[in-house]
Parts: sequence; structure tokens; C-alpha cells
Amino acid sequence: MTSSKEKGMTRRDFLDQVGKVGGAVAVWGAMESLGLLGKPLMASAKEFNSPKKSDLTMANKNGKKVIILGAGIAGMSAAYELGKAGYDCKLLEARDRTGGRNWTIRKSTEETEISGVKQTSKFDKGLYMNAGPARIPQHHVTLDYCKELGVELEVFANSNDFSYHYQENSGPLSSQKIRKGAIKADTRGYISELLAKVADKSALDLQLSKEDITRLTAYLKGEGDLSLDYTYKGSSRRGYMELPGAGHQPGTLETPFAFKELLQSGMMNSISGDYSFQQQPMMFQPVGGMDQIPKALESKLPGKITFGAEVQEIRQSADGVRIVYKTKNNGKTKEITGDFCICTIPLPVLKNIPADFTTQMNNAIKSINYATTGKIGLQFKNRFWEQDDRILGGITTTNMDISQIWYPSNDFLSQKGVLVGYYNFGQNAIDYGNLSLSQRQTRALSQGRKIHPQFAKEFESAFSVAWHKIKYNQGGWAEYSASDRKNYYPILNEPQGRIHLAGEHLSYLTGWMAGAFESARIAVNRIHEEVLKESNVTSKVG
Amino acid sequence: MTSSKEKGMTRRDFLDQVGKVGGAVAVWGAMESLGLLGKPLMASAKEFNSPKKSDLTMANKNGKKVIILGAGIAGMSAAYELGKAGYDCKLLEARDRTGGRNWTIRKSTEETEISGVKQTSKFDKGLYMNAGPARIPQHHVTLDYCKELGVELEVFANSNDFSYHYQENSGPLSSQKIRKGAIKADTRGYISELLAKVADKSALDLQLSKEDITRLTAYLKGEGDLSLDYTYKGSSRRGYMELPGAGHQPGTLETPFAFKELLQSGMMNSISGDYSFQQQPMMFQPVGGMDQIPKALESKLPGKITFGAEVQEIRQSADGVRIVYKTKNNGKTKEITGDFCICTIPLPVLKNIPADFTTQMNNAIKSINYATTGKIGLQFKNRFWEQDDRILGGITTTNMDISQIWYPSNDFLSQKGVLVGYYNFGQNAIDYGNLSLSQRQTRALSQGRKIHPQFAKEFESAFSVAWHKIKYNQGGWAEYSASDRKNYYPILNEPQGRIHLAGEHLSYLTGWMAGAFESARIAVNRIHEEVLKESNVTSKVG
Repeated sequence: MTSSKEKGMTRRDFLDQVGKVGGAVAVWGAMESLGLLGKPLMASAKEFNSPKKSDLTMANKNGKKVIILGAGIAGMSAAYELGKAGYDCKLLEARDRTGGRNWTIRKSTEETEISGVKQTSKFDKGLYMNAGPARIPQHHVTLDYCKELGVELEVFANSNDFSYHYQENSGPLSSQKIRKGAIKADTRGYISELLAKVADKSALDLQLSKEDITRLTAYLKGEGDLSLDYTYKGSSRRGYMELPGAGHQPGTLETPFAFKELLQSGMMNSISGDYSFQQQPMMFQPVGGMDQIPKALESKLPGKITFGAEVQEIRQSADGVRIVYKTKNNGKTKEITGDFCICTIPLPVLKNIPADFTTQMNNAIKSINYATTGKIGLQFKNRFWEQDDRILGGITTTNMDISQIWYPSNDFLSQKGVLVGYYNFGQNAIDYGNLSLSQRQTRALSQGRKIHPQFAKEFESAFSVAWHKIKYNQGGWAEYSASDRKNYYPILNEPQGRIHLAGEHLSYLTGWMAGAFESARIAVNRIHEEVLKESNVTSKVG
Repeated sequence: MTSSKEKGMTRRDFLDQVGKVGGAVAVWGAMESLGLLGKPLMASAKEFNSPKKSDLTMANKNGKKVIILGAGIAGMSAAYELGKAGYDCKLLEARDRTGGRNWTIRKSTEETEISGVKQTSKFDKGLYMNAGPARIPQHHVTLDYCKELGVELEVFANSNDFSYHYQENSGPLSSQKIRKGAIKADTRGYISELLAKVADKSALDLQLSKEDITRLTAYLKGEGDLSLDYTYKGSSRRGYMELPGAGHQPGTLETPFAFKELLQSGMMNSISGDYSFQQQPMMFQPVGGMDQIPKALESKLPGKITFGAEVQEIRQSADGVRIVYKTKNNGKTKEITGDFCICTIPLPVLKNIPADFTTQMNNAIKSINYATTGKIGLQFKNRFWEQDDRILGGITTTNMDISQIWYPSNDFLSQKGVLVGYYNFGQNAIDYGNLSLSQRQTRALSQGRKIHPQFAKEFESAFSVAWHKIKYNQGGWAEYSASDRKNYYPILNEPQGRIHLAGEHLSYLTGWMAGAFESARIAVNRIHEEVLKESNVTSKVG
């Protein structure tokens, strides 16, 4: 930069010069170093270059044959990327559908849990629940694939100030449904008051100038909606007893909760959940269900997927890989061979499949814990949460074992809707998983009714998913402890000869589709590099 | 309630009993008093009952003839509601379109400002800017009308942590684009640290128990993402230099800004803008443009609207009203008479129309100030803000005179898009309004380019609206001072004989469509009551 300044160039001149020499890409790079573009938030995604036909030489003109185990996000996106360069990819999928954990429950969806319990969804046509991933942050590579594949997006309402808190056994605010906006307003009010009052007295060892303290208190006044004497006396932010309207209706404010009551309730502790990098606004969902993503990938892979193929053995030699699988319809065992294998099978399933892995690898595979998690979709005759509660999208939070109620972010103000009646983890998910289907439904309804009495009259049908009891998954997502990351994660990430693992479990974005996409990209790059290297060696030998 | 408990009834039994005696409405009321429903957030809307055909008797079997001045939200919704009981409504609209300030700029939209400057929109088909209202809170009656009229809704992304702050001349953070999420994370971090450190030392006169202080510090630790010793050292919430990804990419955090820098920048002061009751999440917009609302209303009023009718005089006698208007196409003066008049003409326009109002009323009309406000729509070849900046919806905030940049909340990841390049008020809006169209465009582009250098290459066309220079509006919305509310607002709300004013200016929701809807409902109720009363008198006399 100094040099361009020395020459008396403007930034624009400089960029023009760069453009003449290096083209648009160079201008982009230069703009980035000049700080003209945003922070490189997509650093990871930008590093990836899809394999190209032109990368390949006569020696490997069609790439190689790659056997991919699992037609979920990782497997299909690997096949899609490799396909761009002409690789011959074959996918083995145990189910009769693609998507894996990206699974949208619709009318007539069927599932038999490992325990043998079978259910068939009675949701109306057009209504659905995303049983697995259900929201996409705007910085995830998932959106790049949505764009590339033409998957239409809409906002996922992750945080709605009109949704409720409902806490039991937590002091004077127990067993009331309270708008999240009210909890936020009161908390911010009292916190700002506390700090403003001591800041004003300069009682704090702030190491701030007098000017800074003035700025701080001005900020706190706004942040907490404080009165002139820095006291929190309530705020329109928390809502009204009677809304402002027309004519002589200026609105009647509600009285704030007492600070002690708030502290005792613990409700304030969930506010920062909205701030996390993976969940801060905006978030997105595909129009028509999350499975629009696997459907779009599948459409790019005609004839490449063998459904109902349960992998039995994963074998390799110095020359290639050999996969033994059982076909579900007739139970016959078959084999397929290839040059490489990408294995996206979740670890709780993979650990029971004989494979030519090192002992170290087998040990790593069986050491990783997977999340227990469950959801229930509840179809209602009427969207009473919109009509009566004025909650359009968002999530209600509770310390009851249902944990959360999700309001749909689509088809607002239409007649019927499917709520997520619980979304829970750990012991709560295990407990619900152990119930019969009708017990799950009854329990979810009876708890939800405390918040929404309309549950009683409006309920139509339910479909519940206990991920740890779903065959071919046996868990929600990989959960690494710090020591797992240190001891096992590096091993899982090392290719085993011609076999590469991929999936959300091979990422720091576990539980997110982006982890699966990014991990698939790594496997694709490694195989492509290997093929290019091999063909160089070959040409030297030949 | 005590009585039902005394009888040993469950709540359910009680409600069943109520239902048997009083039907569904009674159950609802009882549920509300039992606290089973949410707070009556729609209090104002719930009070309204549309006039019904069955309200009317032989003496007034078709209601009466009501002349409505202005086919905006207030005028058309009044006609729509009165129409339900069979009233004969005629609307006079000066423009050749409905909607008033609810105005969506599309391909070929034309406008000539009061100064004589004419522009025609060159936006591509399917692209648009909502020049007037552009977002709807979930508690507004506007949504009830959307539901009733079948207007499809999508989320309006009002607050996006990925959008930017950009401040000039405000210390070390000046002239940088900074993600709002980073400002929020750092602010909450430092504020929480400050309070946590004094709370822990019990240096605060908190009047809280030891337990409460433990709860407070636990909350602050989460709120600020503090380290174990209650220090803020940065947070993933503010974003990454390198994102977490797959393989060996855990993500690289950014360094937080210094607290002094933050305070000096003033950026933290705009955080609470997201908290206001009218703007907290979720907010909504009609799919396809805000004008879907007036279009839906218009479709309910076939043959009732006379377009190009400029009101010249508003007259009344004891028996009825008489409106003189000029037809724009041939300049001829016409008259229409009726029993009542609802006048929705904005006050800056109304004050120049001779009317049979009291001196007091005329004085009130001319005393109310209207907001000066302006917007520019900028069409770009590519949605670079989505592709490069990863901003999908939301608003960037700046102290440059453009004030705001709005990213569209629709058609995410499509090719082209229209940004709002400025949305400003007061002197900034006056300044922009005084520029020529091309100067407005140049100025908006040159300022916007500091945030988005891509403005330079990707710009295609612009359309700007200075509301104070738009004929038939001459301002954005009524702006009442406290003394105006006291001195003039009550007068404006009193019917003038057979003439009733309606519009956002007759509400505590000025600038919102809900103000217009709610105010129209009051005028409708008053006229309907008047008609019912008159006919009772008549029948007594007869």
C-alpha cells in the first residue's frame, strides 16, 4: 500500500492498475487487503475450489471411481463436487431416501425405531416438521449450496420477543407465561440502573475519563430505558396492558417485575442464547422444508445412488476399495469396488461395521459420544399461537422437560400448522425416547397445555423422533469433549489408505449441515490431489 | 375462581361448565381471567366489532351513504368495514392508484414532485422498493387485515447482527465497517465485566441477598461471555477472522475493540433501537410488496373508487355532506353528496381545502407538524451484500447523511436486488429533497460506496422519494409534540358534525398503517352508532 501512496495514486487508481494487470480476481484480493470488503467471513468456503475437468490429464481423464457410503449431505455433496470433474461416483444408501438426518416429516412419512415401534405421519399435505437440521446461519456454506442448487430460502424466526418463558419452581414468577421481550426489558433495565448509579458516583475503578463515564451513562440510559435519575421504572419495550391505538388510546404500560423475582426465575439467563455466532440473526430455512437441500443434490446425481444398500464390510487393498452391502429388498449380499471410498456413516453405526481401519482408528470411532435428542411435531387445527398469542415464529423456552416449543416460520396466518412440541437433549431426550409414541404425545400435550391451553381443543396428530433410536443414525450429532478433540479427532481426520471419513463429525460445526459440507470438501480435495499426484507418478513411470 | 375450587372442580370442569352456559366466547373470557391465555395484547383490535347487516333495521336497512376522501389504508378499510353492513360508500381519490403512502415503487412507476421534477422507475420487473411503510410488527391490527384479506406474509429482517455500523469522525473506530454483532458482543462484554467485578466485591448497594448476587454474576458471565475471572476477552459472538470449519479448522477469533474506542464511537447507542416495542422481532412484510395490502382492500371495493378526483371543498349541512372535487383528466368540477363523510386527507393537504369546520378545528389542522423523510431505491446487477458480505436482510446504520442502508428481505440469493440506499429524516431528508434526482443518486452512491465499494460497479438505476415534496401527502407522518397532543389532538378527534377525520394522524401509532386502520375503525363505529341512534329517534317520531 505504501508504494501506491508514494506514487501519489488514489485507491481507485491503484485498483484500476491492479485490474489491468491481474483481472477481476486480483482487484478483489487488493480490495480485501485495502479493507474495502468485509472481513473474510467465508474464509473456509473461499479456500475450496471444485475439482475441474481441466485439472485432469489423459492418464486420469475421467478421474477415478469413488464409492460413497451414505447419501446425506456429506455424501451427496462429495459426489456432486467430484462429478464436476467427471469422477465416477456411486453412492450406497441404506434408506430408501436421501438426506440422512436432514429429514422432513410430511404426510405419510414412516419410521420404525430400533425398538421396533413404527409410526406413520398423519400430517396434512403441505404441513411438515424438520426433524433434523431446521435453521441455517447466514455465514454457513450451506447457503452457498442453496444458491448454487437453486433452493429458495425464507427467514427462520429463531428469536421472537413475543414468544414466552415458562418456568416452574423458580420463585414468584413460576408457572406464568411471560413474553421474552418483558424479561429482556426488565433485565436490561435493572442491570443498566445498577451500573449507571455507580458509574455516576464514579465509584467504579473504571479507568475511564470523565467524558467516557458520561458516554457510558448515556448508553446505559438508552440500553435500560431509564428515567432521568437512572432508575428503571418499566418500559414500553416489555409490552402493554392495553396497546396504543387510535383516538384516545395512548396505551397502558405494564408494571415491571421486581429484580429479585427476575433473578430467582433464572429466565434472564437464556437471553444470551440469541447472541451466539451460530444463532444470531438472521437465520434461514428452505421454502417447503429442509429436505429441499438433499432433494436438490439428489437431482444432480441421477442413477448414482443405490437405495436400500446396507453396508456390511468396508475393505481396501493398495489398489482400491471393496464394499460389501446387503440389499434390503431381497436380503442378498453384493459387492462394489472402486478406487477410493468416502465414508459418511455416523460413528455409532460405523463402529459395528467391519472395516480395514487401523486399531487406533477403530478405537477413535467407538470413543466418540453422540447427542441424544428428540423432537415431536404436533399438528393443530388452528394456528392459535398466531391468532390468540400473536406469536408469529420463534421459540418458547421452558424448564419443563419439553424444553422448547417452536412456532413455524412459514405459511404465517394460514389455517393449520405444525409446532415442534418438544426439542430436548440429554436425559430429557432419553426419557421421552423411552416412552411409547402415545405417551410421548400425551406428555408433550399436557406440558404444552400449561402454556397454550388451546392444545387441548386444537390438537390433531403427532410424529416424534428420538434420534438415538433411529436406525442408521443412533444419535443427533457428534459431541466431542476437549480430550476427544485432542486424542481422537486428529485420527478420525486422517485418511485410512483409500478411505476418507466425512460428515458433520469431522468438523468444528458438529450438528450443522455446514460441518458435513465442509468436511466433504476436504475429502474431495484430498482424493482429487491424490489422483493428480498418482497420475504424475504414473506418467513418470510410463 | 374460589367458588369453582370450593366445589372441587378442576379448571377443565369449570371451563366446560362455562361453555355449556355461555358458549365459546364465554369460555374465552373465562380462560383469560384464569390466566390461561396470553396478555390481551390485541386489546384495541378486540374491542372492535364490524358493523353488521343485522344491526340495521327497516328504517336504515342499507345504512347510509358515506363519502370517503382518500383511498389509502384508512379510507379503504373504513369503506370495507362499512360495506359489511351494506353502507353505500364512495371514495374520492386524487391519484390514479390506491394506497396513499403505502406505495411500492416498481418498473415504470412515475412520480412528479411538487417542484415539477418527474421520474420514471427503471427497476426490473419483479424488483421493488416500499417507499412508505415497509415493516409490520406482529402485534399490529394490520396483520389481522392481512389474514382476513388473504395477503401472504414473509419475515421482514429488521435487525441483522451481520449488517454494519459505519461511523465517521467518532474516534479510532471511524470509517470502518463493523458488524453489528461485534459491537453488541463487545459492549455487553465490557458492561457485564464492569458490573460483575463490583457485584462480586459486594461494593454495590444492591439490597440483594448473597444468593441474588451469585445469580446476578452468573447472569453477567453469560450475558457478557466473560472468562472465569469475570473479564471480557472477546467472544465468538463478535465473529471470526477465520471461520470454524471441518478438519483442522477450529476457527480463529477476532480481537475485541477497546472499551474506550467503543464508547467514543457511539455505535453502542443504537443497539437498543432493536428493543423498541414497535420494532422488536418478529416483523413482517407482504410477499410481493407492501402494496399488496391496498390492492387487497381495493379488490373488495369494486366500482366504489373515483380516481383522479381532487377534493376542492368539504361542505355539510344538518342533513348531509357535499364534496366538491375536480376531475384530473378534464379539469371539470363535480359534486357528490352523502349522509356522512370520512376525511383521510393528510393535514398538510387538508389545511388548504375549504371546509365547514370550526375555527378551532382549522387551527388544529394547520398546527400539526409532519415528518420530513426520504428514501432512495438503488437497483444493483448483483446482490453483492449477500454474496460478499453475507448480509441477508437487515439494516446498516451510519452517521453519514444516508443514515441507513436496507437490504431486501425477499428473494434471497437471487441475482439482482433493490437496496434502500438512504432512509433519513429531518434536515438530512430536506437536504436530499433539495437535490436534483441525479444529485441524490450520486450522493447516495458515493456515501454508500464507503461501506460497499461494489456500489461503483454494480449500480443500475435509482428512484428517490422525498415525502414532503409528494403531492397529496406533503410529509411522512404526523409528528405530535406533547403540547400538540394536549391542545390539538383532542379537537382533531372530535367529529365535525357529519364529518369524521381518520388516518394515522388520529392515533398514537403515527407513521404506522395500524394507526390508519385503528382510526378508521373509530370513525366507522361512530358513524354506525350515529345511524343506529338516528333511526331509533325516527322510529319513535314515526
